[in-house]
Amino acid sequence: MSKKTCVLVAGSMGTALAAVLADNKLDVTLWTRNAAQAEEINTKHTNGRFLKGTELHPGIRATTSMEEALQDADSVVLAATSSAMREVVSQMKPYLKPGTLLIHATKGFETGTLKRMTEVIAEELPQTDPDRIVVLSGPSHAEEVVVRCPTTVVVAAKCLEAAEAAQDLFMNATFRVYTNPDVLGVEVSGALKNIIALGAGMSDGLGFGDNAKAALLTRGLAEISRLGVAMGANPFTFAGLAGIGDLVVTCTSQHSRNWNAGNRLGRGETLDEVLQSTGMVVEGVKTTKAAYELSRQYHVSMPITNVLYKVLFEGKEPRTAVEELMGRLRTHEIEETPTVSWNGEEPTP
Amino acid sequence: MSKKTCVLVAGSMGTALAAVLADNKLDVTLWTRNAAQAEEINTKHTNGRFLKGTELHPGIRATTSMEEALQDADSVVLAATSSAMREVVSQMKPYLKPGTLLIHATKGFETGTLKRMTEVIAEELPQTDPDRIVVLSGPSHAEEVVVRCPTTVVVAAKCLEAAEAAQDLFMNATFRVYTNPDVLGVEVSGALKNIIALGAGMSDGLGFGDNAKAALLTRGLAEISRLGVAMGANPFTFAGLAGIGDLVVTCTSQHSRNWNAGNRLGRGETLDEVLQSTGMVVEGVKTTKAAYELSRQYHVSMPITNVLYKVLFEGKEPRTAVEELMGRLRTHEIEETPTVSWNGEEPTP
Repeated sequence: MSKKTCVLVAGSMGTALAAVLADNKLDVTLWTRNAAQAEEINTKHTNGRFLKGTELHPGIRATTSMEEALQDADSVVLAATSSAMREVVSQMKPYLKPGTLLIHATKGFETGTLKRMTEVIAEELPQTDPDRIVVLSGPSHAEEVVVRCPTTVVVAAKCLEAAEAAQDLFMNATFRVYTNPDVLGVEVSGALKNIIALGAGMSDGLGFGDNAKAALLTRGLAEISRLGVAMGANPFTFAGLAGIGDLVVTCTSQHSRNWNAGNRLGRGETLDEVLQSTGMVVEGVKTTKAAYELSRQYHVSMPITNVLYKVLFEGKEPRTAVEELMGRLRTHEIEETPTVSWNGEEPTP
Repeated sequence: MSKKTCVLVAGSMGTALAAVLADNKLDVTLWTRNAAQAEEINTKHTNGRFLKGTELHPGIRATTSMEEALQDADSVVLAATSSAMREVVSQMKPYLKPGTLLIHATKGFETGTLKRMTEVIAEELPQTDPDRIVVLSGPSHAEEVVVRCPTTVVVAAKCLEAAEAAQDLFMNATFRVYTNPDVLGVEVSGALKNIIALGAGMSDGLGFGDNAKAALLTRGLAEISRLGVAMGANPFTFAGLAGIGDLVVTCTSQHSRNWNAGNRLGRGETLDEVLQSTGMVVEGVKTTKAAYELSRQYHVSMPITNVLYKVLFEGKEPRTAVEELMGRLRTHEIEETPTVSWNGEEPTP
């Protein structure tokens, strides 16, 4: 009998990961709150709202019943948005068998508490061992994963055996999975790169070109790595798939929601207009606020985050903002006393 | 009286840098071997072969006379191809005043000797202080520089005062210049990123998608950084504008010749077809050979470079090559004993 796994919820990433698991011949149940969506997945094998034009593996079975979804599940994959995660996980609590492998693929902090997703999951599910909660991250646009474009990701857990169990579930010829012990680094870089993607989209929307975007991305990576290291991350994680890899794909791909939101802001739309018409969550907007607060809490200089915060929440003009960023960088690229294993530049405030 | 500067030669980068210097109100002479090109620049203020559709600053004066070009020049900017550099510099020798500031912007090693451009320049011009030879690099597509898109670059020289003099010449509101003492790192990363750009183009040409390209770029940066550090570079340089910054712009921009060449190889054209029809030098092809030799000389594992070498020079199928690369990476992202300040992964050979 094949292993049973449950994926929550049926957004683009949840659906794409369900497809990988179905390819790997697992018995996959996809939980969704939306009965019409469950019906569509079960009868038409499509998820038109999140993965338009893609035919899904017919083995994926959708349900709106949490009890049914979790019954006999050996593993659970969580891909709710960061704001829905706590509520979804709390619904799982009565039905979750002890020892079930938990893997999440959500990039963002909880609003208000600024907690990471593994922390939120552990709080809501006291019956699980927190060291066995796995995060899956890396350059993995769902639109490409679901059509089996070659993709590489990392899985991180404090307990190596849990990470390896997650690796075994997902690994196949086109979906390559690498383990990494740095849970905090993988979660923080996955969340923070969305800020830089917003900025990159804004630069593109303003017509500033590839040279400017590359500079923004370079300085952005230095700044998110600086915060991550202050929070306790391994700097190597930022140089790997969950760091640079995910940053590059998010800043340069047409599939990125965060890049698109930034692009529209750069072209003159307001944040309200962008958010209202997107119909999907733009994690980078909330993450900018979270990182703005974390940079104060950890006393880390984050000039790009600061400027984006002003654009998003204080009405600053995008053009002025990006021009200020271009002009304010220090004249020496490498500081004499770098504080992190990156180029620990500390632009003048 | 304004300072006099001379730029050699009138390719896309040389012409774009001449335009920046003319914007900065310097007296700019652009040297070219090609009389028709000099005539075009002087009368029509265009350089149709290299920067099609762009009107040049009318202050740029072109000449085919080396004597005239170098007369009274306080500074010389060298942007010949890596294969032409030695010959161009040797022609300068009789006319070069001692103490003239020398800045080069060429990304590649000399074929055969594997020497860096500052080494080639120093050998041909014994009257100059080698520590005062400056390299200019970073994410700076000429097509964007010449139309004043915001651009950031680094200038590196062993002698800080020489780097600062170069910074003063080029710095303006849209062309931002940062100093970096790591001459070797800046030259090596500028050359080696063209290999990864070829690979990224090939992956795109094969239709592998953004996820695959991001993975290639991440592993590629780790591998070129590993070689650079073995050669004596500062690992921070690879995390900066001349490293990640230039790599990103080269792998994702439609302006990149190296990406384009790789893309055509991925679509099934042969190397001969690509090189014959390009009409411009594809530095990445020669650099792949150079890096292949350097990786042996310095005992550094470079799986992406090795595979590209086989595609370019031994007739290996691009699809098989990229698929092999996707499959061969180790399962643990972070090695236990990293040898460099990056993620010192050492994929299995």
